[in-house]
Amino acid sequence: MSNLSKILIKGGKVVNEDFSVISDVYIENGSIQEVGLNLQVPGEVRVIDATDKLVIPGGIDTHTHMELAFMGTQAVDDFHIGTKAALAGGTTMILDFVIPHKGCSLLEAYNKWRGTADAKVCCDYSLHMAVTWWSDMVKQEMETLAQEKGINSFKMFMAYKDVFMLQDHELYAAFSQCKEIGAIAQVHAENGDLIAEGAKRMLALGITGPEGHELCRPEEVEAEATQRAITIAHSVNCPLYVVHVMSKSAAKVVAAARRNGRVVFGEPIAAGLGTDGTHYWHKDWAHAAGFVMGPPLRPDPSTPGYLMDLLANDDLSVTGTDNCTFSICQKALGKDNFTKIPNGVNGVEDRMSVIWEKGVHSGKMDENRFVAVTSTNAAKIFNLYPQKGRIGKGSDADIVVWDPRATRLISAKTHHQAVDYNIFEGMVCHGVPVVTISRGKVVYEKGVLHATPGEGRYIARQPFSEFVYKRVMQRDQVGKPTSVIREPYEGEVISLQ
Amino acid sequence: MSNLSKILIKGGKVVNEDFSVISDVYIENGSIQEVGLNLQVPGEVRVIDATDKLVIPGGIDTHTHMELAFMGTQAVDDFHIGTKAALAGGTTMILDFVIPHKGCSLLEAYNKWRGTADAKVCCDYSLHMAVTWWSDMVKQEMETLAQEKGINSFKMFMAYKDVFMLQDHELYAAFSQCKEIGAIAQVHAENGDLIAEGAKRMLALGITGPEGHELCRPEEVEAEATQRAITIAHSVNCPLYVVHVMSKSAAKVVAAARRNGRVVFGEPIAAGLGTDGTHYWHKDWAHAAGFVMGPPLRPDPSTPGYLMDLLANDDLSVTGTDNCTFSICQKALGKDNFTKIPNGVNGVEDRMSVIWEKGVHSGKMDENRFVAVTSTNAAKIFNLYPQKGRIGKGSDADIVVWDPRATRLISAKTHHQAVDYNIFEGMVCHGVPVVTISRGKVVYEKGVLHATPGEGRYIARQPFSEFVYKRVMQRDQVGKPTSVIREPYEGEVISLQ
Amino acid sequence: MSNLSKILIKGGKVVNEDFSVISDVYIENGSIQEVGLNLQVPGEVRVIDATDKLVIPGGIDTHTHMELAFMGTQAVDDFHIGTKAALAGGTTMILDFVIPHKGCSLLEAYNKWRGTADAKVCCDYSLHMAVTWWSDMVKQEMETLAQEKGINSFKMFMAYKDVFMLQDHELYAAFSQCKEIGAIAQVHAENGDLIAEGAKRMLALGITGPEGHELCRPEEVEAEATQRAITIAHSVNCPLYVVHVMSKSAAKVVAAARRNGRVVFGEPIAAGLGTDGTHYWHKDWAHAAGFVMGPPLRPDPSTPGYLMDLLANDDLSVTGTDNCTFSICQKALGKDNFTKIPNGVNGVEDRMSVIWEKGVHSGKMDENRFVAVTSTNAAKIFNLYPQKGRIGKGSDADIVVWDPRATRLISAKTHHQAVDYNIFEGMVCHGVPVVTISRGKVVYEKGVLHATPGEGRYIARQPFSEFVYKRVMQRDQVGKPTSVIREPYEGEVISLQ
Amino acid sequence: MSNLSKILIKGGKVVNEDFSVISDVYIENGSIQEVGLNLQVPGEVRVIDATDKLVIPGGIDTHTHMELAFMGTQAVDDFHIGTKAALAGGTTMILDFVIPHKGCSLLEAYNKWRGTADAKVCCDYSLHMAVTWWSDMVKQEMETLAQEKGINSFKMFMAYKDVFMLQDHELYAAFSQCKEIGAIAQVHAENGDLIAEGAKRMLALGITGPEGHELCRPEEVEAEATQRAITIAHSVNCPLYVVHVMSKSAAKVVAAARRNGRVVFGEPIAAGLGTDGTHYWHKDWAHAAGFVMGPPLRPDPSTPGYLMDLLANDDLSVTGTDNCTFSICQKALGKDNFTKIPNGVNGVEDRMSVIWEKGVHSGKMDENRFVAVTSTNAAKIFNLYPQKGRIGKGSDADIVVWDPRATRLISAKTHHQAVDYNIFEGMVCHGVPVVTISRGKVVYEKGVLHATPGEGRYIARQPFSEFVYKRVMQRDQVGKPTSVIREPYEGEVISLQ
Repeated sequence: MSNLSKILIKGGKVVNEDFSVISDVYIENGSIQEVGLNLQVPGEVRVIDATDKLVIPGGIDTHTHMELAFMGTQAVDDFHIGTKAALAGGTTMILDFVIPHKGCSLLEAYNKWRGTADAKVCCDYSLHMAVTWWSDMVKQEMETLAQEKGINSFKMFMAYKDVFMLQDHELYAAFSQCKEIGAIAQVHAENGDLIAEGAKRMLALGITGPEGHELCRPEEVEAEATQRAITIAHSVNCPLYVVHVMSKSAAKVVAAARRNGRVVFGEPIAAGLGTDGTHYWHKDWAHAAGFVMGPPLRPDPSTPGYLMDLLANDDLSVTGTDNCTFSICQKALGKDNFTKIPNGVNGVEDRMSVIWEKGVHSGKMDENRFVAVTSTNAAKIFNLYPQKGRIGKGSDADIVVWDPRATRLISAKTHHQAVDYNIFEGMVCHGVPVVTISRGKVVYEKGVLHATPGEGRYIARQPFSEFVYKRVMQRDQVGKPTSVIREPYEGEVISLQ
Repeated sequence: MSNLSKILIKGGKVVNEDFSVISDVYIENGSIQEVGLNLQVPGEVRVIDATDKLVIPGGIDTHTHMELAFMGTQAVDDFHIGTKAALAGGTTMILDFVIPHKGCSLLEAYNKWRGTADAKVCCDYSLHMAVTWWSDMVKQEMETLAQEKGINSFKMFMAYKDVFMLQDHELYAAFSQCKEIGAIAQVHAENGDLIAEGAKRMLALGITGPEGHELCRPEEVEAEATQRAITIAHSVNCPLYVVHVMSKSAAKVVAAARRNGRVVFGEPIAAGLGTDGTHYWHKDWAHAAGFVMGPPLRPDPSTPGYLMDLLANDDLSVTGTDNCTFSICQKALGKDNFTKIPNGVNGVEDRMSVIWEKGVHSGKMDENRFVAVTSTNAAKIFNLYPQKGRIGKGSDADIVVWDPRATRLISAKTHHQAVDYNIFEGMVCHGVPVVTISRGKVVYEKGVLHATPGEGRYIARQPFSEFVYKRVMQRDQVGKPTSVIREPYEGEVISLQ
Repeated sequence: MSNLSKILIKGGKVVNEDFSVISDVYIENGSIQEVGLNLQVPGEVRVIDATDKLVIPGGIDTHTHMELAFMGTQAVDDFHIGTKAALAGGTTMILDFVIPHKGCSLLEAYNKWRGTADAKVCCDYSLHMAVTWWSDMVKQEMETLAQEKGINSFKMFMAYKDVFMLQDHELYAAFSQCKEIGAIAQVHAENGDLIAEGAKRMLALGITGPEGHELCRPEEVEAEATQRAITIAHSVNCPLYVVHVMSKSAAKVVAAARRNGRVVFGEPIAAGLGTDGTHYWHKDWAHAAGFVMGPPLRPDPSTPGYLMDLLANDDLSVTGTDNCTFSICQKALGKDNFTKIPNGVNGVEDRMSVIWEKGVHSGKMDENRFVAVTSTNAAKIFNLYPQKGRIGKGSDADIVVWDPRATRLISAKTHHQAVDYNIFEGMVCHGVPVVTISRGKVVYEKGVLHATPGEGRYIARQPFSEFVYKRVMQRDQVGKPTSVIREPYEGEVISLQ
Repeated sequence: MSNLSKILIKGGKVVNEDFSVISDVYIENGSIQEVGLNLQVPGEVRVIDATDKLVIPGGIDTHTHMELAFMGTQAVDDFHIGTKAALAGGTTMILDFVIPHKGCSLLEAYNKWRGTADAKVCCDYSLHMAVTWWSDMVKQEMETLAQEKGINSFKMFMAYKDVFMLQDHELYAAFSQCKEIGAIAQVHAENGDLIAEGAKRMLALGITGPEGHELCRPEEVEAEATQRAITIAHSVNCPLYVVHVMSKSAAKVVAAARRNGRVVFGEPIAAGLGTDGTHYWHKDWAHAAGFVMGPPLRPDPSTPGYLMDLLANDDLSVTGTDNCTFSICQKALGKDNFTKIPNGVNGVEDRMSVIWEKGVHSGKMDENRFVAVTSTNAAKIFNLYPQKGRIGKGSDADIVVWDPRATRLISAKTHHQAVDYNIFEGMVCHGVPVVTISRGKVVYEKGVLHATPGEGRYIARQPFSEFVYKRVMQRDQVGKPTSVIREPYEGEVISLQ
C-alpha cells in the first residue's frame, strides 16, 4: 500500500541521545527524509499524531538467541515469533549469535544461521559470531567474516567448560585476531573451571534445585573472569565488550577498567535490570527454574538498582536481553539436577518497558540516556550509526511512538513470545510502545501486529567501528613502548656448564 | 562585507559529540543553514576548504574571570583581550563570573558586569553569578536573575573565609533556592577554615614562598569540601556543578557521587589537565608564583593524566580555565608572603590545544568526546544546546576548522593574552585552530585576528535546563518519602517535671 | 571472705589477642599473679574449673551513658544497675561520658559525674569528657583534666545543633588542644545542619513516626561528617576516634583514611552489629521507637555484616554500645513527633554475646580478634593496657570464663537492665559468660550476681597513649614541611593604589 | 663458653607486637627464662646493657632462595653465607623454598634441600614446598610432608609457563589438598600466559634490555592473577598467602579481599618496600639488570610508600625478601635478551633496616607493628608462635638489640652477602642491629659475626595453624549451603529426541 511508505509523525517530542525537541518526522522509502517543525510533505501521506508522546529510535537488542539448540533442546522463540515480540515491545533490530560447535566451520555456521533467519525475521537483524575453539582455520574465517560477511563482533566463552570454553591462551589469540581485523571481542565472563567444580560440589551436598545454579557460580566467579578478560584484551590493545554483566562485582570491574582508560563496554540485560536471583530460592520448582540462565541473576536484591545506576552513569553502556526461551516442560529436563535445566530467559519484548520503568520512571536516567542505552550506543559500538540508533535525516525509519505516562502489565498471558511464562510476570511498567515502525512501515499499532516474516533484512557491519577503534588506533601509534638506549654491557659473563 | 555573511566550509570532517562525518557546512546570517554533502549554495559565498581538517563546534570556556578586581589588583586580560585570545585558540564563547562583594546587590553587580563586558567582548558570552553572602534580598535577586536576566547558574564559595565564603547553613539555603528557581548550584570546594589555619601555620613555620600555597591547602581539603557540597546539595535534590576539580581525591569524590546517582558535574580546567603543582617548588620565585591559583595545582605528577582519564570516561563532564591572569609584577605583591600572591592563571587561549594534546593525541579520548568536553556538554548543562555546542542546522555559526596533525608551540612570546608569562610555556601541542568563525564571521584565520570589540553578544539562559533537571524533577515526583501507617500509640507516657 | 581473694582458674583456654593456650590463671589481691600450666598455689584458694571453656579478659564497653539526663528525661540504667548488667554480660569496665551543658565548666561536670558514679559502680570505670562549647576556659580545663583527672579522651559533637554541636573552627581548636595535651579526639560524626533541616522537612511532609528519624539523617550525613572530622584532625596531626560508626558509608570513610595512613579509629556498637534500621518501619510504634538512637541504625540489612567484616579486618577497631536506655513510656514523649523520642538503646549487657554470635560463631573473626575488639584495643587506645585488656602476670583480674558452645536467648524478660524492652529481643546467641571476675572477685556466676555498688573504681588514664601517639609524635618530627631555598625576587612589584 | 649460654639483657625496652615495656630478659639454654624488671639471675651470666635500645624478636624472613639453581646458574648466597648475612641484619630465621622440577618427587626434593641446608645454616630455618606439577603422587606427598616433615605451606606458580606454572584446574586441586591437610596455599601471582606473550612482543619490538622485563609483565598481570588465585582459593575455603606483592594494584586486590572476609595474607618484600622499578630504565645495563626479579619492581615511584601504608594498616601482613642473588656476571647471561637475566635480588641482610627506615622512622608504623610484620605475624601464620616471634617466657631466645637512633649506610662494599652489588646501595637507614642472639647465643655483636654453620636447626611446623585455620574451620561448619525444601515437580517434561 502506497500510504504505508509515506508517513508523517506529527507533534511528538523527538528524543535522541543528545536532546529532545518537539518535531515532526517525515518518512518515505524506509528512511527518514526530514525532521523539523511544520514539514511540507506530499499528499498520500499517512499522518500519525504523536502529541504528548515521545518519538524514539527503535530499540536494538544486542543479545538474543532465537531458536537456539542448547542443552538438548531448542529455544521456543524462533526468528519469526521472537522478532514479532520484539516489535510489539518497541525493539526494531536484534543482534543474534551464531554459535558453531567446537571443531566446526564458522562460515558454515554463519550460512546456516542466515539460512534460518532471513526468511523469518520481521525486523532487521545482524549477527555476532561465537568462537568456540581455536585453529588457523578459525582465525582465517574470522577475517573472512569481517571482510565479506558483515560481522565485526566475536564472542568468546570463558564458561561452559568442554563445550564452548576457551583457554586463556586461546582467548589471547582470539583477541589478537579481533584487533587485527577491526572487530570487537565479546566475552561471556565466568570462570568455567570453578563452575564445573562448584556444580559437582553442590550436587555432592545434595543440592539439586535451581538454587544450586547460583550457589555453584557466585558472583566472584563472574568478577574474576571479567577482570581476566579485560587484562588479556588490554595486553593486545583489543576493545572488549562484556555480555550480560549480571552482578555488582562484575560491574565494578568494568567500571574501574573504564575509569582506568580501558576500551571496554558492559552490557547489562533486561533480566538483570528488572528482577533478581532470589527467585532461585522460590518454593515452586517451576517458578525457580524459569529464572535459570548463565551467569545467574544475583540473590542480592540491590543488584538491579545498582546496575541501573551504572548504566545511567555510562559505566555500563548498552542493554540486551540474552533472550533464549525454554518453556517449563523444557526447563523440567533439570527437575532433578539443576545442571540440566536449559539456561535462558525471556526479555526481547519487555526490555524497553522494563528499562523505562526502572530507569526513567524512577528518575535514575532521563529519556535521552534511555535512547542511548536501548539503541544509540549499540548502533555506535557495532558500527551501525547513524543508520540505526538516531532519528535524523537519512537514518533508517525504525521508530517507536512511546507513551511515557501509559502503563502496561507484563504477563505471559498477554505477551507475544512463545514461552509459557514470563520472568517479569506482574510487573506494571510505565512506558508503552504505541506505534512501532520498522523500515518505514507500521508493524505494530494499538496492540496489533502487522509484521511479516522475511521483511527484516540482514544488516552487514563494517569493521573498525570508529566509536570503538579511534582511541585504540591512536594508542597503537603513540603508546608503543621503546627501548632505553644504552652502551653495550662489556663486563664479564659467566659461562654455563 | 557581504561575503562574510555567507560561508561554505567544504570537505571537512564535521565532528559532533555523537559522531564524525565528511560534510559541507553552509552558513548565513550567523547561523548554520545546512549540513550535508554537495550542498547547493547561492553565489557570493566565501568558500573555506577544510579538506583533511576537522570542523568542530567552537569551544565554550565555562570559567573565566576577565579583568577581575581581586586581592588588591586587577586581572590583566580584560573582556576585549581575553575574548580575542579565546578566538585565536578556538574558543567562541566564555562564561564569566559576576562576583558581588559581601552585602552588595547581585543585580547591581550584574549590571556592572554587563556594562563592562558588552562593549568589549569579541565573542558571545554569558554570566554566572556568585552568591557571596545570604539574605532575603539575595534570595529574591537570585529569582529575578533567573527569570529576567538569563542566569541559571550560581556559584557559592566554601573557601576565602571572611571574603566570599558561606557557612554550611547558608549553602543549604542557597542550594534550596537554586533548586526552586531551576538553576544549577556551583561550588568552589575547599574548606576555608582549614585553609585559613593552614596558611597561618605555614607562615609560622617560616614558609613564605609559593610552595606554602599548596602546603596550606592540600588536596584532602578540596576533597572534603567536595563531599560536603554534594551531600548538602543532595539533601535538597539540587543539581551541583563543582568548578575547577584540581585533585585526584576530589575527582574521585565526584565520580563516586555520580555512580551513586547524584546529579553532579565536575569541571577540570586546562591548567589542571596540562600541568601540575611541582612548579610551586621551582627555584625561581616568579616561575613558581605564576602557577598560584586556588585550589592549587597538585604536586602529584600523575594528577593531570588521571583527571583526563576521568574526563574521557564522563566521570568529569566539561572543561573551563579559571582564566584570571596577573602579570609577574602583580604576583610580586606576595613576594614575601604567599597569601598575598594574586590567585590566577591563564588558559582561555590554550585550553583547546592542551586538551587535544593530552586527551586526544594521547589516545585517552576521541575527537567526539573532545567536542563534548570542550563545548557540547557546557551548552547542555547551561541550557544553550543546540544553539551552541553543535554543528547542525539552525545552530549558531560558532565553528572552528581544526587541524589535528599540525602542532604549535605555546609561549608567552606569541600568545594573544595580556599576561607576561604562560603556564604552558614550551608545550608543543598537536591540534591547531586554522579558522575560527564566530556568529558566522571569520574572526581568526591563518594566525590573524579579525575580531571587533562589542561584536559578541550576551547570551541569556533559561532556567530548568533539561539536561540537568529532567532527572531532578522526576525524582521529586517519585522519590518523596512517605510515612508508615500505624495505629496510634496508646500506652503510658512519662510526664516531664 | 578471704577465699574470694585467691582464685585459681584451672584448665581453661586462656585467650589473649595474640593467641590462645590452655593454661591456669592464679589471682590474688585483685590482680593476676601467674599464668601457666600446673601452677603451684597456696592453700585457701578457690578453684574454678574452666575445662572446655575460654578464659578471656573482661569486656570493656567504650561507650555508655548511664543515668544520662537527655531530651527532658533520664536514662533508666543508672551506674548501679548498668554496671551490674555489664558484669552479667561479661563486661568488667565501662567508659562513660561526662557531658557538660554549653557554657558550663568541664571540671564541675567531671566532679558531678564522679560524685554520682563512684558510689554506685559495681565494676571499674573511666570517663570521657564531652566538649560542647569552646572558650579559653574550656581549653584550660581540658589540660587540667588530662594532667590531673585521668581523662585522655574528649568527644566533640558535629550533630545536635544548638545543643552540643561545635562549628568547624571550634572542632579545629578542640582537636588542636587534644593534640597538645596528648588526648585522643572523639567525634559524634553527623552533619547537624542537615539533620535540623531534614527533620523540619520530614515533619512538613507529615512524617512524624520513627521512620522519620532515619529519613532526616540518612547515612551520607554521617559519612560526610566523618570525612570532615578526619580531614580536620589530620590538619593538626591529631589522632581521632569516631564513636558509633553506624553505616557502611561512614565505615568506608574510616577504612579509607586508615589505609591512607591516618591515625583514626572507628567504633561500631552492639546495636549496629546486631540489628538494623528496618525496625523504624515497624508497624508497632513502640517497637519502632525503641530503636531510635543517633546516628540511626541503617535500613540496609547488609549493614551489620559489613561492619563486622571491617571489625574483623581491623578497619574498625573497637566496640562499645552507646548504652542509653529509655523505657517505652519515656520514648512515648515523641509519639507524635519523632524528634522528641529520647535517643538511645540498650547494649551494655548483651554486647559480648552479640559480637560472639555475629562475629565469631559466624566465622568472621576468631576468638583472639574477639578479645581484641571487645577489650584489648580499648585498653590500648585509652592507655589502660596491659593493666586491662590482657590476661597476663600483673594485669588486673578482670576475667570472664566464657562458654563458646552454650547459647542464651536475649530477652527483656530476663535481662538485668532497667529498661523494659531489648533491641535484641529473641536473638539466640552462642557465647555465654559463665563466671565474671572483677578485680579478683567473683561477681557473677551461674546466672547469679554478687556485685556490690561502689566496689568498682575510677580508673585514671595517662595522656599520650603510646598505641595512639607513637606514630603521631614521629610524624611531627620527620614530617614537618620545609621551605624552598630561593634567591629573593628582585623584579618589579606593582604598587597598589 | 659457659657464659654464652646464660645471658641477661638489661635495661632495654622490650618490644612485642602488642606493646613495649622497659624490662630485663634472662636467657638460658637457648630459650627465654624470664622477662621482667630487676630479675634475679644466677652467677656466670653475661650481661648485655640495652639501655636506650630496643629488644626485639629476631626477624623472620618468610621468603628466601639460598643457592637456588635457576635459569642455568645458581644463586650465590648459599645457606651458610645467606644465614650469616641474615644474622648480621637482625634476622634469626629464614623460610626457604624447596622447588622440585616438574615430574619429580616432592619428598626427594625435600630431602635434597635438607641435605644441603642442615649443615650450613647459621640460624634456624624452615621450608616451604613448591608444587610445580600435579598428580596423585604429588597430592599424596603433600600429605606426607604436612604430617611427617613439618611443612604446612605450599607454593604454586601462576607464572613461569612450561616450567613451574600450574593451570587453573591444577590450582584448584592443589588448593583443595592444602585445605584437606591443613596447610596454607601460597601463590606466585602473575599471569604466565600473558608474560610469555608479552616477552615475545617486546623482543619483536626490539626491546631487549631490562626495561623489557617490566614492560612484558605490567602490574595488571599481577593483579589479575592475584584476583584469580583468591577466587579459586575461596571456592574451596582454603587460606591463601600471596608471596611478593609488588604493585599497588595487586595490593589493592588483597586488601579488598580481606575486607570482604577472605582469609588471605599479602607479603610485600624488602625490595618492593625500599626501592622501585624506575631502575629498569637506568642507562647502565648492569645497574638495571641487578633489579630484575619476578614480579618486577614497579616504575610508579609511589609504590613503596603505598605498600608500606597497607603493611602498616594490616592490609598486608608480613614481609620477606625473595632473596635470590646473582652477581653481575650471572645477570649478564641476559645482556642481549632480558628474558635470560637470572631473576632475583638481595634483601635478607637489609630487610629489617629498610623497613625500619621506610616504615617506622617515617612514622607510618610504630615499633610494635614493626615487630609484627618482620617477625610475629610470620610466626603466627606458619604456626611457630609463640616459640618464635615473641619475647616471652618459654620462647626461643632469638633476639635482637636494636638501636633505633643509629644509622648505617647500605653498600655492597660492606654487606655480608656474596652478591657483588646491592639494590639498596647508598641508602642510609635508621635502625641498626647492635647484638643478634640466635638460640641463646650471641652471633653478631659490634659488627662482628660469631656464627657457625650447622648451628641453626630445621624447624618443623604443625598443620592447621590456629591463626589461619580457626575461621576457616568455623566457616566450614556454619557456612555450608543448604537446599530449598520443595514439592517435587510433577508437570510435563519434554522428551529429548
